[in-house]
Amino acid sequence: MVELSKSIDVDRIRAAHERIRAYIHRTPVITSERMNETNGASLFFKCENFQKIGAFKARGATNAVFTLDEATAKRGVATHSSGNHGAAVARAAKLRGIPAHIVMPSNSAKVKIRAVEGYGAHIVFCEPTEEAREAKCAEVIEKTGATLLHSFENENVIAGQGTAAVELLEDIPGLELIMCPVGGGGLLSGTAIAAKSMRPQIKVIAAEPANADDTAQSFRAGRRLVTEKKFTIADGLRTNIGQPNFEIVQRCVDDIVTVSEEAIVSAMRTIWETMKIVIEPSAAVPYAAIMENKIDLREKRVGVILTGGNVDLDALPWDL
Amino acid sequence: MVELSKSIDVDRIRAAHERIRAYIHRTPVITSERMNETNGASLFFKCENFQKIGAFKARGATNAVFTLDEATAKRGVATHSSGNHGAAVARAAKLRGIPAHIVMPSNSAKVKIRAVEGYGAHIVFCEPTEEAREAKCAEVIEKTGATLLHSFENENVIAGQGTAAVELLEDIPGLELIMCPVGGGGLLSGTAIAAKSMRPQIKVIAAEPANADDTAQSFRAGRRLVTEKKFTIADGLRTNIGQPNFEIVQRCVDDIVTVSEEAIVSAMRTIWETMKIVIEPSAAVPYAAIMENKIDLREKRVGVILTGGNVDLDALPWDL
Repeated sequence: MVELSKSIDVDRIRAAHERIRAYIHRTPVITSERMNETNGASLFFKCENFQKIGAFKARGATNAVFTLDEATAKRGVATHSSGNHGAAVARAAKLRGIPAHIVMPSNSAKVKIRAVEGYGAHIVFCEPTEEAREAKCAEVIEKTGATLLHSFENENVIAGQGTAAVELLEDIPGLELIMCPVGGGGLLSGTAIAAKSMRPQIKVIAAEPANADDTAQSFRAGRRLVTEKKFTIADGLRTNIGQPNFEIVQRCVDDIVTVSEEAIVSAMRTIWETMKIVIEPSAAVPYAAIMENKIDLREKRVGVILTGGNVDLDALPWDL
Repeated sequence: MVELSKSIDVDRIRAAHERIRAYIHRTPVITSERMNETNGASLFFKCENFQKIGAFKARGATNAVFTLDEATAKRGVATHSSGNHGAAVARAAKLRGIPAHIVMPSNSAKVKIRAVEGYGAHIVFCEPTEEAREAKCAEVIEKTGATLLHSFENENVIAGQGTAAVELLEDIPGLELIMCPVGGGGLLSGTAIAAKSMRPQIKVIAAEPANADDTAQSFRAGRRLVTEKKFTIADGLRTNIGQPNFEIVQRCVDDIVTVSEEAIVSAMRTIWETMKIVIEPSAAVPYAAIMENKIDLREKRVGVILTGGNVDLDALPWDL
């Protein structure tokens, strides 16, 4: 595990923003009168589903790849990911012209494998367990000299993920609350640092599936717990929060709320139907918390980060 | 049938734009590098799926309702529609504070019935045939004194629909081609008048399902034909083109191309997956023509009107 200094501050996030600016979208913030009326609040949705590779992960991976010095970069980068981070690292490595090794579980969705292949990365398949992923990734690094870019326990990844909140706060004045989902905690920790630095009075609240509520439990216990996970449709959030991420969360986040699977599906569907945008289940988790009245929104100006839009249209949750 | 003068010109469309401005969205135009690379062209998608009521129909209906003089307006408006036009008339009437009578087939989708009800309109059900719809609508008008607002054979509706093209041409300089689908021809005729007036060198090409190709057949024959229709997933385009609409199409449109059902489904899915937006099957018809290489796009700047985003998420075409 990477030892995380307290050196991730908003300046570092702003430097990340400068570094990645040419390679990512400044995504739009969209509003919906109907959503505002329903909730008696002003909601501002930061559309990272429109981001490169279809998710915010493009930010952190690009920052991490472009922060490497020339000699290190040449040896390539490696990561293990079945999802958006793998595609994000593959794309960033292609942009920098260096090799990328992506360790993926052998049962990964074909569409995800194709996305990584499309960026010319070297895919290494492994058994679909956390241990197998880490072991195979270590093996690749040993053999190639590539640098590990962990999907959330990496300072440069965290700084990169924080850039979404920087844009949101720059574009929308007077936000009183900012919400995002939490899985490994890369987005949440970057968001919390950016938000609390740029606007100290803002509240930062994360939402987590009740079926994978390690962060909520850890937050209440005051120490990081590794919990048993049940299945959640929000597949991007099944992972445990990282230790460095948790330390930032303890310092900078106001609350973690949990949501039911039914609320996630319902929130996802509501956003598709009302706002006519495609978001993935993980991205619907903060709005699920709003629908379940887990948060007092009344008349507040609330930023909601919609984290991504990569879904399998042949397996939509309301068909399951 | 309304006798259509040649009086619909771009000034009338601009006047419509002023009239409805406060009640509709100026929808965004979005681009996708991936779509551009795939097609070797610059595509500009006018997102009427983000329009009020989820479709461009809000424009024409609002213009028609707000053009009525006070005494006429007070007696209310009526239309027959199983789809977006019904919701658009209901909403516009509510905004003006006048009664709306919407004749809908008894087998209309519940979500569409709820949308019309939500605007407080009076729904009159009828048998699901064209004759029954028109007869029932005439009966309602006879009884109430309401004004018929036909969904495409109405000058003010046509002028309103043309405002989407006005915005697109204002926002994107140098367009060489503009594409939209054709059903009754309200959007196409308004678009063609606006586009050819504002930018005479522009080409206007419409796309139509091969299974409902009356406009393409009529265009080639030089006279309006009423053809047999097969089933098409693009339910908004099943109707025959109107006579006044066809006259404008003959004068102002460069070509009508037809597309297969497979291409419509594939285009819809490609736009969802690549652009992360929800569009309805009818809205995918122009991009289906692009995917089937029905149009030479090479290196052109092309505007594509995405007409709407109202889909039943329980009956997506790739599940059928």
